[in-house]
Amino acid sequence: MEFFKNISKIKYEGKDSTNPLAFKFYDADKVVAGKPMREHLRFAMSYWHTLTGEGSDPFGTGTMDRPWNELTGMEKSKLRAEVGFELMSKLGIDYFCFHDLDIAPEGNSLKEKQENLDEMVAYIEELMKKTGIKCLWGTTNAFTNSRFMHGASTSPNADVFAYAAAQVKKAMEITMKLGGENYVFWGGREGYETLLNTNTELELDNLGRFLQMAVDYKAKIGFTGQLLIEPKPKEPTKHQYDFDAATVMGFLRKYNLQDHFKLNIEANHATLAMHTFEHELNMSRINGMLGSIDANQGDLLLGWDTDQFPTNIYDATAAMLEVLRNGGIAPGGLNFDSKVRRGSFELEDLFYAYIAGMDTFARGLMIADEMIQEGFFDNFVKERYASYEAGIGKKIVSGEVGFEELEAYALTLEEIKNTSGRQEMLEARFNQYLYK
Amino acid sequence: MEFFKNISKIKYEGKDSTNPLAFKFYDADKVVAGKPMREHLRFAMSYWHTLTGEGSDPFGTGTMDRPWNELTGMEKSKLRAEVGFELMSKLGIDYFCFHDLDIAPEGNSLKEKQENLDEMVAYIEELMKKTGIKCLWGTTNAFTNSRFMHGASTSPNADVFAYAAAQVKKAMEITMKLGGENYVFWGGREGYETLLNTNTELELDNLGRFLQMAVDYKAKIGFTGQLLIEPKPKEPTKHQYDFDAATVMGFLRKYNLQDHFKLNIEANHATLAMHTFEHELNMSRINGMLGSIDANQGDLLLGWDTDQFPTNIYDATAAMLEVLRNGGIAPGGLNFDSKVRRGSFELEDLFYAYIAGMDTFARGLMIADEMIQEGFFDNFVKERYASYEAGIGKKIVSGEVGFEELEAYALTLEEIKNTSGRQEMLEARFNQYLYK
Amino acid sequence: MEFFKNISKIKYEGKDSTNPLAFKFYDADKVVAGKPMREHLRFAMSYWHTLTGEGSDPFGTGTMDRPWNELTGMEKSKLRAEVGFELMSKLGIDYFCFHDLDIAPEGNSLKEKQENLDEMVAYIEELMKKTGIKCLWGTTNAFTNSRFMHGASTSPNADVFAYAAAQVKKAMEITMKLGGENYVFWGGREGYETLLNTNTELELDNLGRFLQMAVDYKAKIGFTGQLLIEPKPKEPTKHQYDFDAATVMGFLRKYNLQDHFKLNIEANHATLAMHTFEHELNMSRINGMLGSIDANQGDLLLGWDTDQFPTNIYDATAAMLEVLRNGGIAPGGLNFDSKVRRGSFELEDLFYAYIAGMDTFARGLMIADEMIQEGFFDNFVKERYASYEAGIGKKIVSGEVGFEELEAYALTLEEIKNTSGRQEMLEARFNQYLYK
Amino acid sequence: MEFFKNISKIKYEGKDSTNPLAFKFYDADKVVAGKPMREHLRFAMSYWHTLTGEGSDPFGTGTMDRPWNELTGMEKSKLRAEVGFELMSKLGIDYFCFHDLDIAPEGNSLKEKQENLDEMVAYIEELMKKTGIKCLWGTTNAFTNSRFMHGASTSPNADVFAYAAAQVKKAMEITMKLGGENYVFWGGREGYETLLNTNTELELDNLGRFLQMAVDYKAKIGFTGQLLIEPKPKEPTKHQYDFDAATVMGFLRKYNLQDHFKLNIEANHATLAMHTFEHELNMSRINGMLGSIDANQGDLLLGWDTDQFPTNIYDATAAMLEVLRNGGIAPGGLNFDSKVRRGSFELEDLFYAYIAGMDTFARGLMIADEMIQEGFFDNFVKERYASYEAGIGKKIVSGEVGFEELEAYALTLEEIKNTSGRQEMLEARFNQYLYK
Repeated sequence: MEFFKNISKIKYEGKDSTNPLAFKFYDADKVVAGKPMREHLRFAMSYWHTLTGEGSDPFGTGTMDRPWNELTGMEKSKLRAEVGFELMSKLGIDYFCFHDLDIAPEGNSLKEKQENLDEMVAYIEELMKKTGIKCLWGTTNAFTNSRFMHGASTSPNADVFAYAAAQVKKAMEITMKLGGENYVFWGGREGYETLLNTNTELELDNLGRFLQMAVDYKAKIGFTGQLLIEPKPKEPTKHQYDFDAATVMGFLRKYNLQDHFKLNIEANHATLAMHTFEHELNMSRINGMLGSIDANQGDLLLGWDTDQFPTNIYDATAAMLEVLRNGGIAPGGLNFDSKVRRGSFELEDLFYAYIAGMDTFARGLMIADEMIQEGFFDNFVKERYASYEAGIGKKIVSGEVGFEELEAYALTLEEIKNTSGRQEMLEARFNQYLYK
Repeated sequence: MEFFKNISKIKYEGKDSTNPLAFKFYDADKVVAGKPMREHLRFAMSYWHTLTGEGSDPFGTGTMDRPWNELTGMEKSKLRAEVGFELMSKLGIDYFCFHDLDIAPEGNSLKEKQENLDEMVAYIEELMKKTGIKCLWGTTNAFTNSRFMHGASTSPNADVFAYAAAQVKKAMEITMKLGGENYVFWGGREGYETLLNTNTELELDNLGRFLQMAVDYKAKIGFTGQLLIEPKPKEPTKHQYDFDAATVMGFLRKYNLQDHFKLNIEANHATLAMHTFEHELNMSRINGMLGSIDANQGDLLLGWDTDQFPTNIYDATAAMLEVLRNGGIAPGGLNFDSKVRRGSFELEDLFYAYIAGMDTFARGLMIADEMIQEGFFDNFVKERYASYEAGIGKKIVSGEVGFEELEAYALTLEEIKNTSGRQEMLEARFNQYLYK
Repeated sequence: MEFFKNISKIKYEGKDSTNPLAFKFYDADKVVAGKPMREHLRFAMSYWHTLTGEGSDPFGTGTMDRPWNELTGMEKSKLRAEVGFELMSKLGIDYFCFHDLDIAPEGNSLKEKQENLDEMVAYIEELMKKTGIKCLWGTTNAFTNSRFMHGASTSPNADVFAYAAAQVKKAMEITMKLGGENYVFWGGREGYETLLNTNTELELDNLGRFLQMAVDYKAKIGFTGQLLIEPKPKEPTKHQYDFDAATVMGFLRKYNLQDHFKLNIEANHATLAMHTFEHELNMSRINGMLGSIDANQGDLLLGWDTDQFPTNIYDATAAMLEVLRNGGIAPGGLNFDSKVRRGSFELEDLFYAYIAGMDTFARGLMIADEMIQEGFFDNFVKERYASYEAGIGKKIVSGEVGFEELEAYALTLEEIKNTSGRQEMLEARFNQYLYK
Repeated sequence: MEFFKNISKIKYEGKDSTNPLAFKFYDADKVVAGKPMREHLRFAMSYWHTLTGEGSDPFGTGTMDRPWNELTGMEKSKLRAEVGFELMSKLGIDYFCFHDLDIAPEGNSLKEKQENLDEMVAYIEELMKKTGIKCLWGTTNAFTNSRFMHGASTSPNADVFAYAAAQVKKAMEITMKLGGENYVFWGGREGYETLLNTNTELELDNLGRFLQMAVDYKAKIGFTGQLLIEPKPKEPTKHQYDFDAATVMGFLRKYNLQDHFKLNIEANHATLAMHTFEHELNMSRINGMLGSIDANQGDLLLGWDTDQFPTNIYDATAAMLEVLRNGGIAPGGLNFDSKVRRGSFELEDLFYAYIAGMDTFARGLMIADEMIQEGFFDNFVKERYASYEAGIGKKIVSGEVGFEELEAYALTLEEIKNTSGRQEMLEARFNQYLYK
């Protein structure tokens, strides 16, 4: 059955097309920097925002006009899956990401939940075979149900820890069954509301224990996907333990987990932590920890996770520069953890939104590649730091000198000459690439 | 004498030029929307950031390499003026904006300060004649000197009020003498630090009285320039009375000053008030109060006035849409209230920075004009609100109905049908214009 | 039927009581500043947070353990009402505030909604008679239902405007029937998401028209309550038209509505607008527009409306200083627009939370009264501004001088002498009051 | 010579004193929790804010009325020292903290700077002997001089790295000579402005190398003081590498420096990083890294480092709870990295301000001690996490179970029962302590 009857497969029509249902920049098989765009970008649909989100917010009920609105239970889950795979097929999206709770009804017990999952996994496997669409990553939802009100692996309640463990175990199993290339941990309610009632030390140690168990279980079942942690600084809890990339990397080092996890960086989480998106990507990359990307966009004048579809070309270009310098994002990808605005409630808005996001990143990829090919920025940076490639600088880098040698050297210096950072010139140059 | 010996007049070389000392988009005499770019944009140099700013910040001293660094007194002021006019001439900037304190040494008394100003005004008039450059606006600096520590017209000290009045009187006179087309009020320290020591009621009434005196004096001397108020929410004071456009417009209405003032909207002040730049322009425009623009750019992840040169093409386009819909910005203009970064300390960085800003707004103008010509967005909006052009909507707008009629009408309605806001589609369309 | 069986009427036990179910400071009939505490504070229960809120958030479902969880329809509404009145009775809260949607099911049509309301109003009237509890204010909920996705009186859809009008009409009628002393307008979705699809001018004019209709209808039915507007800067919409007190007061003046409305100031909305709570109260008060208070508390490190029960004694004291200087808050009151944390899910947490809030404001009242009695701060301020009571200052205030006279005066001044603002000394003094 | 002629040694007069030049809570030798207040609090004067700060800000010149205003060079430095030691003596402050640049003129060369330092160190040693006042910590100022415009140890210029090394070497030597108990690293300009011109990887590696050199040199000279890093997220640079406690701890672990450094936590830096003060203290403490405290207070509605004297009793109590749980703060202390407001320009404001800060922390200590003695909060927390002390929880903590055992356990669970977090009740209880 076809749901988007008036919408055929979205085609690339070029930058001058006025067809809102066409790509202006994303040309999946066009080769950029040595491989097809689709292999650079590895776009994924987020199951939750696309298929289970209803458009509700803290001040209003759902608005979304969806074919499954009147259904319940397994029937609803199956219809969502079918619609989702049609959407991906028509958009030419090669991957999807999911929480267990997105794909199957929760049921009345853990056992029922697991059975529902098994049934839906089989159903989705069929759709995957039919369409060739793959699973980028799976995860568990250990934050929506009220039992997680005080956290999951950091809950003060050991039963909740156990329950969350059971959820991750199952979610990892089904991710493996679906051929998922990654498994993600987002610490939904792993944080605290007030220190007055919280033992942060025990909670963080428990989080470390939990992740070690995940590493152990992964080895045991032979899951070869990449494990990812997704930082977020706040919301829903006042303080989330996985505040930002630096915090998570420090945590991993403390608990000796740094060889088992990489990071899943989300643009809107970066800005909620008062960082740019590219900062978080950069910090992850230079630590060898850039694993995957949640592509969306926040509103820097608002203080919550708006999860907008990414349309800012500056941010997309800066992100793709980091991805290219990382040697690519695989086995991760670009998951659109983005939702249509509450007022964009019609089915076709899903297409407009994905097209907007895909075109933005395609354009970002093209510009970033051009920048790297041309070498202008790289050369500027290389020259700026040239003093570390010879003389005293080289000795600093190689560890040949200490404070005493450096003092002796400094005492011989006449006035120190710096060079301009040229920020304005570089920003103007960046702008030129937008119009090429 | 020529100061920028290696820099000739900056020319338009088009978007593919790799010459950093050329315009890529700003082509002063090119006609867009019926008049030359220069008449739309009315670019102005800010005297303070360009000629008196030293690159200091709260954690460091000045860095700027400037030819007047070793001079003092009137000699320094004259050299600054000469360099400034050479800079404007070479950049093709037609206007400048200034504080009294920017152009002449403060002296040791009010009288000396006035004499210094007179001398420098005569000096600058010569430079204006020689170059054809004009004065967009003048203002007084009633915030730097320690006597203004508790405010100027809102100081608890009546002597300070009087002193500030004397300053504005003189500044308005010299602005008039220089042919200034506007006079600006920015309430540098008109605000408070703590309510514990503040009589806000008296302070605000005094601010109203002060502005009324300015209106009276303007009439008396026959100054025909436009009076402008520039909103800013905070910094230097904890709370600035002229918080944002809405606050200032409400204040003007309260004190019956709304026919005598318009607003000077600064991008960075907008975002410090948690508004977008275009929001502040839009609110001013629809109230008939958009007077002039301080063109710069803030960093939304930082909490202070960074006053960066504007290089964001989204913001510049959104701003120029408001300017075009306003029927232009004259007699106001686009004043670059922008400073080179502290690390961009070389003289030529001034050129790079102004070129960056001018090209950004030129490009914004071109895109905005194209958008308006094409009518896509305007048509979308017109259609979205069509229900107010007929039937019940028309009666609402014309005042023919009240709650009773509306209730009677509402009781007859079946389910209400809304249409999608299409934000994602509109944003994607916006992006297409960037690459045209 | 009694729901809180283990909880009797909450009594005042004094500051050393360790009984969590007792007041430590709120002693309802104790006379402070000439009248009983209860008359100063006029505490109100918010129907929505207390009786209809479920503890859901954008990342999780409801958590609250409530006796009506299994019920639906009118039965649920009635049980909520009974529990609410028992809660208020036991807490000694004299008022409640409500939205139409809080007290009765929405039904399947406007007509059914009105009928449901009539039935519940009669039911609630009985409870009011029985308990002596009164209605502080009513309002309509024109934001939760999806028909309001693009706004109510600022919707692009005229049918939605009409529907909202019908809702306000009915809500005003039932508020009048319940003896409500005020009627509140909170512009839930009166704002915009993006200027790309918005006609702000028409929307604001329509908001003005709508409020004028409310004024007209109030006169027609002889409702004598006070009309209030509640500012909020953002959330749910990106930009809310009623941004802050200054914006609303300016709006009212523009549409000539300033004599018909006062403001309902909410602490958390103040801080979301980057103002202190006391700033918003102060600005309203000195403009003669302070009408009522939504007492709660935000988290300044979070960017959304957390609506916490107020427990900060600094804020409560600063607020009560404004209330006392306003000559009281009647006919407004202190409505606890506050919700228990999602993890405070047990019934008794409602008591703990209200006790916390009531004690905090009672303590704030006592301290504020003591401060005013003692006169320390008032004297400091009076002296600080003494220069406006004689000499040149007096002439400024009385309008006897203009710029020319002030310049002449300023030219005669030797160095201007300011006095210290003494902020640290004043803050230390403030602290002393906390421990008295 | 005596400078504060009208001010004698500040005495403890108790909470009801109206003498602004007396302590209301700080009673230095009073024993609390087993030792005198002065030993718990280890108060220090910040040399910079107190003796070299002039009251300038980005919009205004200095305002401070200081006896050294007319002096220059070594004479000025000596007068400052004398005044500072008189101030500390009269306030009963036992420690001071300093940057090299605070105590001696910079001179015209590195050599001259070192000679100036030596002269002033000898001078200060005399004052220390005379008064018994000690040095809490020293540091270098490697951010004010324009040579550090692009950073110090993270500068792209190797000469600057060398120069900074020479500075730290000398500063560590003089700190040692003065008996300093700690040496602090605050990364003033160790950060970046834009990624377009920055090699973050090299810069961070260089920072690691620099700190390793400091560790090596400390060992070489036998300095036994504690090394401290002070986090700050932004300002002056857009992004500071030492963003917050978690970032710094992660950095130290990466470069294997974790055993050589602890953290110096500043309240205002915490809130600029969107954390509470107590969060940063808590994170440091549970990682065994809490070294010292910069006691001040920011304004959460402002986005820059306001460095106000701390007067908030909630924050001070929360901080002292962490200090007591840490077993004290020695060899660190509470350094008032606080400055009087620009409008508090008189000499006596220094006294008012320090008294305000010292009383606030004294009160915080007393309350925190009472809370710990009483055990109410600790018991609540202990009980809340009791499930980890037996059964499945104990097995989780001891590492006896993995995902499989936990799943088996979870499958046996009926509905999971959580307990309320009781935040409101706990906050009310906290408030009760304020009035005791």
